[in-house]
Amino acid sequence: MLYLAYDEMISTLTRALQLAGLDDERAARLACVFAQNSAEGVYSHGVNRFPRFLKDVKDGVIEIDAAHERVSGLGGLEVWDAHFGVGPLTAEDAMARACELAETHGIACVAVRNTNHWLRPGRYGWQAADRGMIGICWSNTSANMPAWGAVDPKLGNNPIVLAIPREKGHVVVDMAMTQFAYGKLEIARLSGEQLPIPGGYDENGNLTTDPAAISKTRRMLPIGYWKGSSLSLALDLIASAVSMGRSVSAISRDPFGTEHGLTQVFIAINFRGAVDAERADEILDDAVDFLLSSTPVDPESPVRYPGQNIAAIREKNVANGTPIHEETWQKVLDFIAAQE
Amino acid sequence: MLYLAYDEMISTLTRALQLAGLDDERAARLACVFAQNSAEGVYSHGVNRFPRFLKDVKDGVIEIDAAHERVSGLGGLEVWDAHFGVGPLTAEDAMARACELAETHGIACVAVRNTNHWLRPGRYGWQAADRGMIGICWSNTSANMPAWGAVDPKLGNNPIVLAIPREKGHVVVDMAMTQFAYGKLEIARLSGEQLPIPGGYDENGNLTTDPAAISKTRRMLPIGYWKGSSLSLALDLIASAVSMGRSVSAISRDPFGTEHGLTQVFIAINFRGAVDAERADEILDDAVDFLLSSTPVDPESPVRYPGQNIAAIREKNVANGTPIHEETWQKVLDFIAAQE
Repeated sequence: MLYLAYDEMISTLTRALQLAGLDDERAARLACVFAQNSAEGVYSHGVNRFPRFLKDVKDGVIEIDAAHERVSGLGGLEVWDAHFGVGPLTAEDAMARACELAETHGIACVAVRNTNHWLRPGRYGWQAADRGMIGICWSNTSANMPAWGAVDPKLGNNPIVLAIPREKGHVVVDMAMTQFAYGKLEIARLSGEQLPIPGGYDENGNLTTDPAAISKTRRMLPIGYWKGSSLSLALDLIASAVSMGRSVSAISRDPFGTEHGLTQVFIAINFRGAVDAERADEILDDAVDFLLSSTPVDPESPVRYPGQNIAAIREKNVANGTPIHEETWQKVLDFIAAQE
Repeated sequence: MLYLAYDEMISTLTRALQLAGLDDERAARLACVFAQNSAEGVYSHGVNRFPRFLKDVKDGVIEIDAAHERVSGLGGLEVWDAHFGVGPLTAEDAMARACELAETHGIACVAVRNTNHWLRPGRYGWQAADRGMIGICWSNTSANMPAWGAVDPKLGNNPIVLAIPREKGHVVVDMAMTQFAYGKLEIARLSGEQLPIPGGYDENGNLTTDPAAISKTRRMLPIGYWKGSSLSLALDLIASAVSMGRSVSAISRDPFGTEHGLTQVFIAINFRGAVDAERADEILDDAVDFLLSSTPVDPESPVRYPGQNIAAIREKNVANGTPIHEETWQKVLDFIAAQE
């Protein structure tokens, strides 16, 4: 494992992205997305995904030059076509626009069609919260989860983010509709560990904690069984109807055979524009303190709120270097060397 | 069990509500809420809850004369104070107002504080869908679910609704954050049945399917374990911040010792105002058909979408009479007799 300085990550990734075809400003912004996601501990959706990004550009899944276009709108609602561009940049622009619209509309929504993978979903929630707004966003995916009562995947794990700004630390929920991500399953399988709770079904149709058995059937368990199944469908339908974009169904028919042309929704609520912001902060702090006063099952593991650990992880990684797989980083350096 | 004609339910409940202090128009509207919830098969949140409603009015939990008030707003966002009035009527008015605001704003939100139990959450989703809009709404509750990793309840089961309108049948998700409702647990316990999957913890801290064991600890399981725990918190924080209302924390301190002064959020998205409505319908139908094409685990139980069964249940109950517990109905008749 390499432990990379933050500035080195940024400069190297920026260089690679310039060589991949992004202009200077967009290359620097996207480098920051990759580096920050890793520095904040979301390694699976940070620099470790960079080689996949380069491959997607090379394969034409990502149109590196595409600019998003506003195709229609009504008041605080806008519909964008991303023209298969760079997912994380479009996502940032969409959430920024939702926040801007919410300045006057109170609540606003930007629905985006034909975009691509946005890397770490939570990022766009933090973005809204940093602007003092509630942020809600979600993406659909290819079909990777069976509906409740079904054996074949016809639903996406459609991650959703809900972010609430607080002076004392934003609360940011970032969750997919499967009980475990495929990445988590893979890590458990490779290290020979069982999952802490059932994560899917084995070949005999029984719930299992064995990651290898689930990898074989690909019958991932929706959170809350029938509930996560329903929620996944609803998120997909809302996103695709509002954006006139591709549903999980359409994405799964894409000739690329990979996630391409996703649909995403970005909602911002400017509550501080409508209420006494100081009093709202008190209400939020009281609610969070109530949660934190829970009696833990394990006295060594006090209850935490979602997002609570991120600042400490970032601080540690920025101070000591961010862990990146050596092979991954070598691929970045090789790409640069080959282009220059 | 009684099987009551729809008109008889309406006229009797209207009379009872007039006697309880509602004016004619509001009495008729609220009678319709109770009767329709039962007729659509949501018996726990229909007429069977009527005696509880009367008790809440008598105890002062529900202020029968209170009118909701718009206290602030910004564009498509409004904040209401319900002044502890009749929950289902305020909820209907709030969703109607959200839809009205969405006519021009595209997306709109009415956040309500100091309201009361809204009976069946899904109702307000159907309401938005019947107006051709996407409806999203949720309520907080008193603390009735421990956070993930905790033993004592500091979160609500905060039900959320997501409704998507379709010519061929609205898709309406109506789900609470606990894997099972207390009512379901109670029914299983009384009939000596085990839950189909674990629903909470026993006294030894183990997950169990035994409803009696869970009733004893009241350690209900959040859907998706840590995920439902996080989602519950986020819904509570958003609702209470936007409305300046009571969080689960504040509701749990209420001197009535029951759910009183709840906080609710109603969002409407007028997507048909921003996109080609016919094309959007095609996208939705394709996505739903894709789900319905799933290979079921049990060939006798094809996969269904949430809300699919409601029309058939309503038709059957309206034709054959809606099942109501005899003792419940007797309480309604006794109340009328005592007042007249």
